[in-house]
Amino acid sequence: MFRLFSQTRRCLQVKRALKRQEWPLRPAHLTAAAQQASFSTASVEHLSRSDSWPKDVGILALEVYFPSQYVEQVELEKYDGVEAGKYTLGLGQKQMGFCSAHEDINSLCLTVVQRLVERSRLSWDSIGRLEVGTETIIDKSKAVKTVLMQLFQDSGNTDVEGIDTTNACYGGTASLFNSADWVESSSWDGRYAVVVCGDIAVYATGNARPTGGAGAVAMLVGPGAPLVLERGVRGTHMEHVYDFYKPDLASEYPMVDGKLSIQCYFRALDQCYSIYRKKIQSQWQKVGVDKPFTLEDFQFMIFHTPFCKLVQKSVGRMMLNDFLAAPNPDTQSGLYKGLQAFRYSAQQLAGSRIGAFSYGSGLAASLFSMRVSQDAAPGSPLDKLLSSLSDLQTRLDARKQVPPEEFAEIMKQREESHHLVSHTPQGSKDDLFPGTWYLERVDDKHRRQYARRPL
Amino acid sequence: MFRLFSQTRRCLQVKRALKRQEWPLRPAHLTAAAQQASFSTASVEHLSRSDSWPKDVGILALEVYFPSQYVEQVELEKYDGVEAGKYTLGLGQKQMGFCSAHEDINSLCLTVVQRLVERSRLSWDSIGRLEVGTETIIDKSKAVKTVLMQLFQDSGNTDVEGIDTTNACYGGTASLFNSADWVESSSWDGRYAVVVCGDIAVYATGNARPTGGAGAVAMLVGPGAPLVLERGVRGTHMEHVYDFYKPDLASEYPMVDGKLSIQCYFRALDQCYSIYRKKIQSQWQKVGVDKPFTLEDFQFMIFHTPFCKLVQKSVGRMMLNDFLAAPNPDTQSGLYKGLQAFRYSAQQLAGSRIGAFSYGSGLAASLFSMRVSQDAAPGSPLDKLLSSLSDLQTRLDARKQVPPEEFAEIMKQREESHHLVSHTPQGSKDDLFPGTWYLERVDDKHRRQYARRPL
Repeated sequence: MFRLFSQTRRCLQVKRALKRQEWPLRPAHLTAAAQQASFSTASVEHLSRSDSWPKDVGILALEVYFPSQYVEQVELEKYDGVEAGKYTLGLGQKQMGFCSAHEDINSLCLTVVQRLVERSRLSWDSIGRLEVGTETIIDKSKAVKTVLMQLFQDSGNTDVEGIDTTNACYGGTASLFNSADWVESSSWDGRYAVVVCGDIAVYATGNARPTGGAGAVAMLVGPGAPLVLERGVRGTHMEHVYDFYKPDLASEYPMVDGKLSIQCYFRALDQCYSIYRKKIQSQWQKVGVDKPFTLEDFQFMIFHTPFCKLVQKSVGRMMLNDFLAAPNPDTQSGLYKGLQAFRYSAQQLAGSRIGAFSYGSGLAASLFSMRVSQDAAPGSPLDKLLSSLSDLQTRLDARKQVPPEEFAEIMKQREESHHLVSHTPQGSKDDLFPGTWYLERVDDKHRRQYARRPL
Repeated sequence: MFRLFSQTRRCLQVKRALKRQEWPLRPAHLTAAAQQASFSTASVEHLSRSDSWPKDVGILALEVYFPSQYVEQVELEKYDGVEAGKYTLGLGQKQMGFCSAHEDINSLCLTVVQRLVERSRLSWDSIGRLEVGTETIIDKSKAVKTVLMQLFQDSGNTDVEGIDTTNACYGGTASLFNSADWVESSSWDGRYAVVVCGDIAVYATGNARPTGGAGAVAMLVGPGAPLVLERGVRGTHMEHVYDFYKPDLASEYPMVDGKLSIQCYFRALDQCYSIYRKKIQSQWQKVGVDKPFTLEDFQFMIFHTPFCKLVQKSVGRMMLNDFLAAPNPDTQSGLYKGLQAFRYSAQQLAGSRIGAFSYGSGLAASLFSMRVSQDAAPGSPLDKLLSSLSDLQTRLDARKQVPPEEFAEIMKQREESHHLVSHTPQGSKDDLFPGTWYLERVDDKHRRQYARRPL
């Protein structure tokens, strides 16, 4: 479900040219009440006891982690003996990141949360909620969240709500919604929420293998955000389907009915978009705006990306929905002739609406939207968020390319070792990015111990 | 985590004498805005667009499911060859419910949700959120929630938020918090939330086996509730521990360090109670009340119950906390000499405060409280809630007692069959309560098909 944000690069590359800078998140990002707060659990006070919602609840900061190695899909095509272009053109895939056996879902989340807190210069006791969305289950009972509590140990802050949430790639989205609801509810104590989305998606050898991936995103959620979750408009569609699922608990690999899953994805997109449009049009009508909502009203769209080609088709699908809903669509010229609406220059990010479609097989899907703050001036929350992500391309470029033979060998190692006890996982620590957590040892009672590569 | 409410019987038996009655949940339970709502997804409107929290958010209705068979712990002591009283006196256990192989977490939740909706005479499209808290994982990706969407099929309502939440016995508590937050947030559209807590807790033969159990609870959450969640006071404690966990994904059985888990439980209770007291005292001070919060201020306490004896010790533990926190405790007479504070007659439920301590190994724990509405008149929400539960004892009495030999045989069947494919699970359908869902068939692709015993 980390893939939810896989397309954000389009937006976020905007500020790529800006020099990388560490930046403190100042209390100005929180409400006045929270500014005066002492966040120590030793003197917890309920700071937001007005029965109203704080302003501009959304994403204050973002942190992204991906593994330091990848395989080229062109090379994978040759290695797998499939026709040239099957993965690169047919699926629209280029490079696939993957983890060695000494990285697991816990280590990924440890890395991304510590990086978020360190780079934002937050104190660990300024966090009042932390939740994890994942479908990479290595323990049926013990939440990843509890493992992350190790990071809070020195601060003494253990009063941190939220836990793990699961449904395929949808868990992270559900966590984001939960955290935003928390900030607007009476449960909020003025502190930040952190939402972590992480997964290691691996498939058995065969058709689905090139659609794997691995990564984690941590989001800092609170009021006064540069990416504001729009209220009262999200459309959700849930139903009972066996399109992709993981019933073989001893294996890392899912069962996949690819054809059915694509049908489900489109059906969910149609349903969510239909509900979203009804809700936002109803809001508009209340303030006297009587026009249909169309794809034009999103300046950017983010899609859950099972594989890249599906997202290209999804844009067309939404436009088809607009066309079908329009009373008298212009079929000769205008929007339906092209994709002009998506040719924005970078400066237009400020003030724009970003649509986001999240899909988790099984299935659970939502279409929601974020408003980007108007203020893009240097030092503004938006500027800080973009600056913090300006090194993404450099970090991607710094990854190590691994030949398919080695990739297949590492996948085999994972298969053979992922539930061993009394075991030290294989994998070179030197290949990890600085500051990356990794699985050091699994003892005879399955207890996992982690270590961190120096910064 | 269904055990969270295992002690509620104490409260709920109050109205046991009342005749069992089916009762409709009328719109009066919702806000005025919601009363006017058409809940069809065809015309979803955002009905709660004032930026304030609705009144008295909490539990409107409760539904409880437990298996129709149990084993006597006295007989289990003999069968296991342990000294008499080890389970019954040492652990405080009497009878243990358990499921045959044709019941799984999905069937349990199907049963309890359908029963809640049918008995409350709700329409399926009056539900805008449904989430499940469980640690009984039979699929690492597909949420139980998605299976429950089958129940909504005829209504056409698929716009139902919420998904599955996991951490040992804590998932249900996290779901309850999430749902209450949702009702207070801008995401709420005026419809009900349903929270489902369910688990099948089975242990390998040995010391822990008599602490198993199985059941599910469904709660209807919304404003105007007879059990109101108190705002801004809950205390949470989370940390990274391996006291009880399920790293062997192929097995239904957990790894348990019983001694460590009891230490963790008490440490979490101390921490949560300390934070809860600070928060509520701070609220009191703001309205001019300057006194320490003590156990006396709870009229009832509900505990997560790993085994019954631990709960008895927990009451003493909280009293010890009061004692340690009191500036000049009276050690000669008064509260600390006995448990008078817990001798309430049934009529005092109305207006009382119920404390609830939830613990999930790993660990995640919270202490929170509910206020019971003042109005206990016939036809009041409180009266309806209690009436709906008045048949609990009758239903418990209607269970079938099974000898330990048969219990052990059924546990063995579960072990051998719980992840088979192309398989029809064993178990007599005739023994199930009317209206119970059961697992009919697992096909060659692990897809599970359920059927329902006639009402």
